[in-house]
Amino acid sequence: MASFPATGVCYYPEHWPQSQWASDAKAMVDAGISWVRIAEFSWAVIEPSPEEFNWQWLDDAVETLGQAGLKLVMCTPTATPPKWLVDQMPDMIAIDADGNPRKFGSRRHYSFAHQGYRKESQRITKLIADRYGNNPYVQAWQTDNEYGCHDTAVSYCASALNGFRRWLGQRYGHIDALNQAWGNVFWSMNYRHFDDIDLPNLTVTEANPAHALDFMRYSSDEIKSFNLEQVEIIRAASPERPISHNYMGMFNQFDHRIVAQDLDIAAWDSYPLGMLQNMQAAARKDAKLEHDCLRTGDPDFQAFHHDLYRGMGRLWVMEQQPGPVNWARHNVIPAPGAVRMWSWEAVAHGAEVVSYFRWRQSPFAQEQMHAGLKLRDDSDAPGLAEIKQFNREIKNLDIPQNTQAPVALIHDYTADWMTMLDGQTEDFHYLRLLLDIYGAARENGATVDVIGPDDNLDGYQLILLPALMHVSDDLAERLEQSSAIILAGPRTGAKTEDFQLPENLAPGPLSSLIGATITRVDAMPRHLPVKMKWNGEDCEVSVWREEARLLSATSDNSENPLMTTSNKARYLLGWADQTTLKSVLKSALEDAGLTPHDLPPYLRVRQRGKMAIFTNYGPLQVDIPESYKGEVLIGDRKIDPAGVAVMTLTD
Amino acid sequence: MASFPATGVCYYPEHWPQSQWASDAKAMVDAGISWVRIAEFSWAVIEPSPEEFNWQWLDDAVETLGQAGLKLVMCTPTATPPKWLVDQMPDMIAIDADGNPRKFGSRRHYSFAHQGYRKESQRITKLIADRYGNNPYVQAWQTDNEYGCHDTAVSYCASALNGFRRWLGQRYGHIDALNQAWGNVFWSMNYRHFDDIDLPNLTVTEANPAHALDFMRYSSDEIKSFNLEQVEIIRAASPERPISHNYMGMFNQFDHRIVAQDLDIAAWDSYPLGMLQNMQAAARKDAKLEHDCLRTGDPDFQAFHHDLYRGMGRLWVMEQQPGPVNWARHNVIPAPGAVRMWSWEAVAHGAEVVSYFRWRQSPFAQEQMHAGLKLRDDSDAPGLAEIKQFNREIKNLDIPQNTQAPVALIHDYTADWMTMLDGQTEDFHYLRLLLDIYGAARENGATVDVIGPDDNLDGYQLILLPALMHVSDDLAERLEQSSAIILAGPRTGAKTEDFQLPENLAPGPLSSLIGATITRVDAMPRHLPVKMKWNGEDCEVSVWREEARLLSATSDNSENPLMTTSNKARYLLGWADQTTLKSVLKSALEDAGLTPHDLPPYLRVRQRGKMAIFTNYGPLQVDIPESYKGEVLIGDRKIDPAGVAVMTLTD
Amino acid sequence: MASFPATGVCYYPEHWPQSQWASDAKAMVDAGISWVRIAEFSWAVIEPSPEEFNWQWLDDAVETLGQAGLKLVMCTPTATPPKWLVDQMPDMIAIDADGNPRKFGSRRHYSFAHQGYRKESQRITKLIADRYGNNPYVQAWQTDNEYGCHDTAVSYCASALNGFRRWLGQRYGHIDALNQAWGNVFWSMNYRHFDDIDLPNLTVTEANPAHALDFMRYSSDEIKSFNLEQVEIIRAASPERPISHNYMGMFNQFDHRIVAQDLDIAAWDSYPLGMLQNMQAAARKDAKLEHDCLRTGDPDFQAFHHDLYRGMGRLWVMEQQPGPVNWARHNVIPAPGAVRMWSWEAVAHGAEVVSYFRWRQSPFAQEQMHAGLKLRDDSDAPGLAEIKQFNREIKNLDIPQNTQAPVALIHDYTADWMTMLDGQTEDFHYLRLLLDIYGAARENGATVDVIGPDDNLDGYQLILLPALMHVSDDLAERLEQSSAIILAGPRTGAKTEDFQLPENLAPGPLSSLIGATITRVDAMPRHLPVKMKWNGEDCEVSVWREEARLLSATSDNSENPLMTTSNKARYLLGWADQTTLKSVLKSALEDAGLTPHDLPPYLRVRQRGKMAIFTNYGPLQVDIPESYKGEVLIGDRKIDPAGVAVMTLTD
Repeated sequence: MASFPATGVCYYPEHWPQSQWASDAKAMVDAGISWVRIAEFSWAVIEPSPEEFNWQWLDDAVETLGQAGLKLVMCTPTATPPKWLVDQMPDMIAIDADGNPRKFGSRRHYSFAHQGYRKESQRITKLIADRYGNNPYVQAWQTDNEYGCHDTAVSYCASALNGFRRWLGQRYGHIDALNQAWGNVFWSMNYRHFDDIDLPNLTVTEANPAHALDFMRYSSDEIKSFNLEQVEIIRAASPERPISHNYMGMFNQFDHRIVAQDLDIAAWDSYPLGMLQNMQAAARKDAKLEHDCLRTGDPDFQAFHHDLYRGMGRLWVMEQQPGPVNWARHNVIPAPGAVRMWSWEAVAHGAEVVSYFRWRQSPFAQEQMHAGLKLRDDSDAPGLAEIKQFNREIKNLDIPQNTQAPVALIHDYTADWMTMLDGQTEDFHYLRLLLDIYGAARENGATVDVIGPDDNLDGYQLILLPALMHVSDDLAERLEQSSAIILAGPRTGAKTEDFQLPENLAPGPLSSLIGATITRVDAMPRHLPVKMKWNGEDCEVSVWREEARLLSATSDNSENPLMTTSNKARYLLGWADQTTLKSVLKSALEDAGLTPHDLPPYLRVRQRGKMAIFTNYGPLQVDIPESYKGEVLIGDRKIDPAGVAVMTLTD
Repeated sequence: MASFPATGVCYYPEHWPQSQWASDAKAMVDAGISWVRIAEFSWAVIEPSPEEFNWQWLDDAVETLGQAGLKLVMCTPTATPPKWLVDQMPDMIAIDADGNPRKFGSRRHYSFAHQGYRKESQRITKLIADRYGNNPYVQAWQTDNEYGCHDTAVSYCASALNGFRRWLGQRYGHIDALNQAWGNVFWSMNYRHFDDIDLPNLTVTEANPAHALDFMRYSSDEIKSFNLEQVEIIRAASPERPISHNYMGMFNQFDHRIVAQDLDIAAWDSYPLGMLQNMQAAARKDAKLEHDCLRTGDPDFQAFHHDLYRGMGRLWVMEQQPGPVNWARHNVIPAPGAVRMWSWEAVAHGAEVVSYFRWRQSPFAQEQMHAGLKLRDDSDAPGLAEIKQFNREIKNLDIPQNTQAPVALIHDYTADWMTMLDGQTEDFHYLRLLLDIYGAARENGATVDVIGPDDNLDGYQLILLPALMHVSDDLAERLEQSSAIILAGPRTGAKTEDFQLPENLAPGPLSSLIGATITRVDAMPRHLPVKMKWNGEDCEVSVWREEARLLSATSDNSENPLMTTSNKARYLLGWADQTTLKSVLKSALEDAGLTPHDLPPYLRVRQRGKMAIFTNYGPLQVDIPESYKGEVLIGDRKIDPAGVAVMTLTD
Repeated sequence: MASFPATGVCYYPEHWPQSQWASDAKAMVDAGISWVRIAEFSWAVIEPSPEEFNWQWLDDAVETLGQAGLKLVMCTPTATPPKWLVDQMPDMIAIDADGNPRKFGSRRHYSFAHQGYRKESQRITKLIADRYGNNPYVQAWQTDNEYGCHDTAVSYCASALNGFRRWLGQRYGHIDALNQAWGNVFWSMNYRHFDDIDLPNLTVTEANPAHALDFMRYSSDEIKSFNLEQVEIIRAASPERPISHNYMGMFNQFDHRIVAQDLDIAAWDSYPLGMLQNMQAAARKDAKLEHDCLRTGDPDFQAFHHDLYRGMGRLWVMEQQPGPVNWARHNVIPAPGAVRMWSWEAVAHGAEVVSYFRWRQSPFAQEQMHAGLKLRDDSDAPGLAEIKQFNREIKNLDIPQNTQAPVALIHDYTADWMTMLDGQTEDFHYLRLLLDIYGAARENGATVDVIGPDDNLDGYQLILLPALMHVSDDLAERLEQSSAIILAGPRTGAKTEDFQLPENLAPGPLSSLIGATITRVDAMPRHLPVKMKWNGEDCEVSVWREEARLLSATSDNSENPLMTTSNKARYLLGWADQTTLKSVLKSALEDAGLTPHDLPPYLRVRQRGKMAIFTNYGPLQVDIPESYKGEVLIGDRKIDPAGVAVMTLTD
C-alpha cells in the first residue's frame, strides 16, 4: 500500500478535554485516516500572555496523535494573533477600502505590510518550528491559514501606503516611467515623486486601473514575502518536511503562483456546496444548475481547482466539506454519496491527501453550525461512513501516478484582475468564462492541466487561453513554436503589461499567430444574447462579442462568425452558450488528434494514467458512454446521482 | 358605558396656533375620542435654551384639552433632545456600526449608554412629572417614544464600550468564564481582562455570535434602566396614573419583556400597510399576499402584535394608521373600511385604547405626507368617518373582558437574536416563521395568547414553541409537567443560554419530552423547496428541514417525516407550506380538545369572552363559516373586503 | 454654407506625439469636422509644478489645429487640479455623505465651497484666458468639465458647512424665520443660531427635507458662483467668444438654469446607450425598451435633453457617443447608423454643433475602452464613416433656423429635488414621468420646448407641467393669463417654496385654475397598477394616483377619473400607462388647435421650421405616416432601424 493517496482530518485538541484525545485519535485511525492537521488557530493558547508560554498541551497532543499512528501537519498560528499583540501595536490591524479599521474579534486581523507584525510572525514561527521541526510525528507544515480570506489580501493602512510607494520606486525607477506606464496624463494624474502617490481607494470615481493593478501586484508581493519568511524558518528547523499553504476556491485576490513557488504542497480548501452558492451570487450562474446541483456542487468547480493548484505543487485538499457548512448564503445537506464522490474526484485529479474539515463539530463560536465527522455528542455524522468507504476503496486499489494531460488551459491572476478592473460589462466574470471552456472540454471527456502563462508548454496537444488579457512576447513566441492546436479568445492579448491597449490592437503579440485583430468589443448584459455563426449554424452568444479584421485568418463565410482560424490557431470572438462551446471544443480536440467522448449531462471523468474516474454531479442516473472500453473496478457503468465509477481503460 | 375600550388621538398643540386648540379639542370629543397623547417631541419648545423654560403653552394646552373633556397621555420628550444639549455633550450621540456619528437633525440622536444624557433624561422627566403629575387631566404617561426606532437600540460609542465591559464583568465575574462561555479558544479570541473586549462591530469577518448576543443583551439592559429611571420619577410624582411606552411592529432589537416589567401599559404603534411593505422586504413574503392585501395589510401581523404586547401589560394601540403613511417603500391608501377594521381588531385582541396618529396632517418637516384625521386645510380626512363609526359601535355594545386563550405561542427575543446571528440560510426569518404558525392556528379559528418563555403555562391546552432557540431547564420542566399538547420545532432547543450547541444535541433539555434528537439541519434557499411527508402525503418544505434520531418518538413510516410524536409532544422537522401548517394546527387543536373552524382565505376571527369579532383582510366577500353559531351584533354573515362582523357565540 | 450646424471633436494633443498632430488635424478637416475642443484635463501638463509652466505644447497644438482650418473650443482645466495643488491644501478635497474624503486619483477632486481652490481656479483661468483669449483660432470656451459628475455637486466638508451657515443667514435673516420655514418644531429640531446647523448627512433617520433642500440650493449656488468667476475672467480676456459648459444627461444635482444664465452656450454630453442603462437602473424602465433599443437608446431621452438645454442657451452637443463607451453597466456597440441618427436628431432639436468624444481611443488610464473616431492603431473606427456621411448631408442641405415650438413642457430642478426628498414611493422618478409625458406628446408628432418655470409662456398653445411640485404665485398668474391649454398633474403645486404643504392643499396657487384640490395621494409600487377611467374606458395607472375634491372642475362621471377639466385647464390625477398618455396628449393637442399625427412605435420626428427630421429608434422598418405631406430630402418614407429621413413639409 502506497502512502498516497490518503485521507486526513483537521483537529483542534484545544477544543476538547485532554482525556478525549486518545479516543479521538484511535477513532480517526479506525476510520482509515492517516493525517491530522493541528494548531493553526492556537496562538493565544500557546502564548496566552506576551512571552508566557503554554506548550504542554501541544506537546501532549502531538504525542497522543502520533502515538496512535497519525502523521501531523503542523501549522503556524499567524492567522489569529492574540488580542494582547493587537493591543501592543494597534496599527497592525488592516484598514478597509472605506478607511475603517478591521478590528479584532474574528480572524485574519492583520496587515501583511506591517513590519512589526512581520517580526512577530517570524518569532512565533521560529518557536514552533524549533520545537516541532524534528518531531517524528510532524510530517508536514502549513503556513498561516487561507491567505486573503475575508478580503484580507489588501489593506489600505499606512504600512501598505509606505510599502506601495517603495515598491513602485523599485518597479519604475523614475516617476516619469510610472506616469508614462499608467498614462497619468489622461486626467492630470501625473505625480512628481513616488511619495505623492496614494492608495487607490476612496477616489472620486474609479482610480486609474493601472494604479489599482499595481496595488494588487504589490499586495501580492507582500503575501509572498510574508509567506517566504515563515518558509525559510521552517525549512531551516524542519528539513525534508514538505511545506504547504491552504488556498481557497474562487479566490483571486493575490497571485497564488508566486506564493506557491516557495512551497512544496499546493493545498486548497474544497467546499462544493458553499462555492456553488457563492458562484451563483458572484457570476449569476443559471438557475437550472443551482436546482440540479444544489447538493453536489458545480460539476467543474472542484475539478478546475484541483487542476489549478496541482499546477503549482503537490496537490492536497486540506479541508474537504464533510456535510453542511455554515458560511454560505444557504447551507444545505450534501446528497448521499457526495462526500465520497468529492473525495474520489480529488484523487482523480492527483490529490495526495484529502483532509476533512473537521473531526468533531465545535459547540461554540463562529462555525458551530459547520459539520464535522462527529456530531457534538460524539456520535458519527453521516459523512463519516462515506469517508470510511472511500478509505477502504483507495486502500484496495493500485492508483497510478498522475501524468501530464494532453490539454492545457492557461490561467492567469493578472488576467483576472484586468477583467475586474476593466470589465466593460458587469456580467463579465473571468472564472466563469474559464469554467465554461474548461467544462466544455470536460463534457468531451478531456483531461486538462491548468497552467500559468510562464509554464512549460511542451507535450500539450491543445492549448486553451481564453481572456488571457496580457500575453507576453515570450509566451507569444512559445505558442508560435508549439505544435499544439491553439484556441484563444475572447479577450486574449487585449492589454499590455502596463494595462494599456496594445499598439497593434488585440490580440497584441498574438496577432500574427491568430491572423486577425480585434476592432470592436460588444459588452452586453447576459440577459440579452445575440446570434453568431458556428459551423454555419446560429449559436447564442452573451456578455461578450468581438469584431475582427481578418489578416491571415479565415472564418466561415458569415457576417458574424464565432471563430477565426489561421493554421493551428483558432480565436473565439464571443462567449458562446455551453452547447456551442462543447461543439467548439470537440472540434479542437479532434484537430489536436485527441478523441472526444460524448458525456451525458453532469457526468464528468478524469484519467490518472490508464485509470478513469467518473463522477455524476447530476440528479439522474447516467450511463458511462460506450466509447469508454475497459474494466470497471468500482461501481458500475450505470452511475447514480452523486455516484462514482472507476475503470481501467483499454486503448 | 365602560371607560374601555375607547379611542384616542396624537395631538401636537405646538404645531398649531393656540387659537385653534379649543376647536380641535371640541372636534375630537365630537368624534367620540376620549384620549389625547401630547408632548413627546416638545423638549425644545419647553426648554428652548438651557434652563430657560416655556411651560405656558403646555399648561394652556393641557387645560384646553382637559376642559373639553379629554384625558391626556403626557409624554417625556426624551426622544428628541434639543440641539443645545447635543452641543453641550457631543459624545451623547450614538455611533453606528461603521463608526460614524448619528448626527442631530432628525430624532433619537442619543446613546442609551451615555451617563450625561441619562442625567438630562431624568432632569426633564422630573420637571414634567412634577408639573403635571397630579394634573387631573393627565391620566396616563408615555416614556420617550418608540425605543430603538431607526436602529437606535444599539450604539457603538465609547459609553457603550465602557458599559459593555462593566456589564460583562458583572455577568461573568472572571474573564475565564467569559472565554469559556463564548468559546473564544476557537480563533484565539481569548481575552485576559474585561477591558480587552471591543464592541462586536467592524471585525474582519463576523464576530463571535456569543459576543454579539451579549452586546444585544447589554444594549437591552441599558434601555430597561433608561426607562426605569423615568418610570421611578413619574411614579413618585404621579401616583396611580398608568405608565406606558409605545413599542413598534416587527421590531426585535431589544428585549421588550424586560422593559415592560416596569410599565403598566404595553402600547404599540400599528401601521398595517407600512409593515406589509417592510415584511415583504425583510422576509420575502409571497407576491400574492402583497397583491391581495396591499390596502388591508397582512391578516395576522396586527393580531400577532396585539397578542404579543398584551402578554406584557395592558394593551393600547398608541398610534394607529388612519390613512396613507409616508415612511414605507410605497405608501398606499387603505381600503375603504380598513381603518375601522383595524380598530375593531385591536379591540378584539384586548386593546383598551386605540389612538390614532395624528389629529391633523402637519404641513412641514419629515412626516408631512403622513395622513391625519384632518387634512392640512382642516377638512375631514376620509379616515375620520370610519373612526366616528367605530366610536358609535363600541359605545353601543357591551364588550366582554378579554380572557385567557386556550392556545399559547411562546415568543422570545433571544430566540430571534440567535436566528439572526446564526441563520444558516439568509431566508430564515424568525418573525415570519412565527407568523406562519400563528396564522395557521388562526386559519383554524383559534384564539391565541403570545407569551414569553418565563410566563405561566397554566390553563393552556395547546402550547406552540417554534424556533425557541434556547429552552431553559425551568421551561423544559414546566412543559413536561403541563397537560397541554406541545408543538415544538423546527429549531427549538438548538442552543444553550451561552449560544453553544447543547451537549445532547437539539432540542437540548426538551429531548426527553420530544423523544428525539436533531442530527442534521438543511438550510435551504426559499425558492428550492423539498418534499416531506405529512399524514402520509407529500408536503412542501422550504428554508428549513431537520433530520432526527428517534428516541421515544414515532413518526409516520416515511423517510422524510414532517413531524415526530411522543405522547403529548409533537416536533416539526421542517418549515412547511401554509396549507400543510393549517392541517398540522388543525390536528394539534383537535388533540388538545379544541374545535377548529375552517375559515376562508383572509378571514380571521378572535374571541373576547363569548364575543367573536371577524375581520376580512382579503379582496373578496366571504362568509362566516356555518360552524359559528350565535347572534350577529354588527355586520352580516357575509363580510365585505375590509369588513367586520361581531357575533355573540352560543356554544 | 452656413457656419452652423457643424461638427466637432474632442482632442487631446497631450496624449499623442507632436509629430502626429498635423496629420490628425488634416484627417479631421477631411472628415468634414470644423471644431475641436481641447485642454480640459491638462492642468498638470501646463503647470507640472507650482508656478512652473509648460505652455509650448499648447501653443503649438493651437497653432497646428488652427492652421489646419479648425476652430477651437478652449477649456479651463479645473476639473483636474494637479496632485501638488491637493497636497498644498488637502482640505480642498470634497467629503462624501459618509464623512470620507474623496481622494485624488481620478477627477473632480475638489469642493466648490473651498475658497483656496476658488483662488486657484481663477488663477489658472486667468492665465489661460490671457494667453489664448485673443488667439484667432480660439472661437469658443468651455468652463471646467461636467460639473457635478460622479456626485460632486455636493460636499460635506468644513468649507461647505461654513458656506451653508452663511448662506442660510443670508436667506433667512433671523434663525426664527428658518425654524418656521423648516417646521423645526416637528421633532424639536429648532436652532438658536445659524452656527448650530449641521450639514444634513449622517442623521439618525432622514433629515428634515427642508434642511436637505436648502443644502441642495446652497450647493447649486456655489457651482453658479464658481462658474461665474471663470466666466468673468474669460469675458474680460476673450471678448465675443461664446462661453459654454458641458452638462450631462439625467443629471439633476444642481440647478443648471442658474448656471446657464451666465453662459452663452448650453452644451451637453450625449451618450444614448450608457444613459439607457443608467435609466434602467435608476427608474426601472420596462425590459422591452432595453431589448428593443439596446443599441439605439431611449427614443425620447436625447431629444428631451436637447430641448432642455436649448431652453438655457445656444445648444451644442459637446460630447456625442461615437461607438461603445466604457462606463455603463454594459457597453454595447451602437446599431449601424445610430451615430448618424443621433447627430441628425441633435440638429433637428436645434444643435449648432455636434462634437464627438473623441478623436482617437486612448490607450491608457480610466477610459481606454471608450471608443473614438480612430482606433488605437489609427485606423478608422466604424463611427467615422457615419460622421462623414452626416457632414456631407448637412453641408448639402439648407437647414432652417430653429423656431419656438407650439408646446411647452415646464421642467424644474427644485421639483426634481422635492420628489427625491419626499417621494412617497420608491418608484416615483421625476425624469421618468417627464419623459413619459414628453414621449406621449412626441408619439403624436409634437415638437416641444422644455422651459423653466420662470420662462416666458407667450406663444405656446399647450403647456404641460407634470409634477411641478412648487408653483410660484407669479407662475400661477401667468398661467391664468395664458390662452394656452394647460395640462398639469400629477403632483403639481404640491409644496410651498419652503417645502411645506400649501394651506389650501395641492395644487396650491393653481387651485382656482384647476378647479380642484387634492385630498389624498396613493403612492404605489410600480408592479401593482390600478384602474382609473379615461374617456369612459379603463386605463392602467401605476406609481401615483390622486383623489380630488372638485370645485369648478368636472371629470367624466366615474368614481376614479384620470383627469379633471376646468375651462382651459386639465389635471392628471394619475401616472397612466403610455397608451393612455398618448391619447391624453392627442386630446390636449387637439384642444390646443394643433394637429396630432399617429406615429408608429419608436418613430420620432421634430420640426425645425418647415423641415421635419424623422428618426427610427426601433428594431423594425417603419413608414412615415401619410399625414406628413411634403418632399423627402434625405432617406425614404420607409425608415430602417436607426435610420433617418428628412422632409420639407407642405402644410
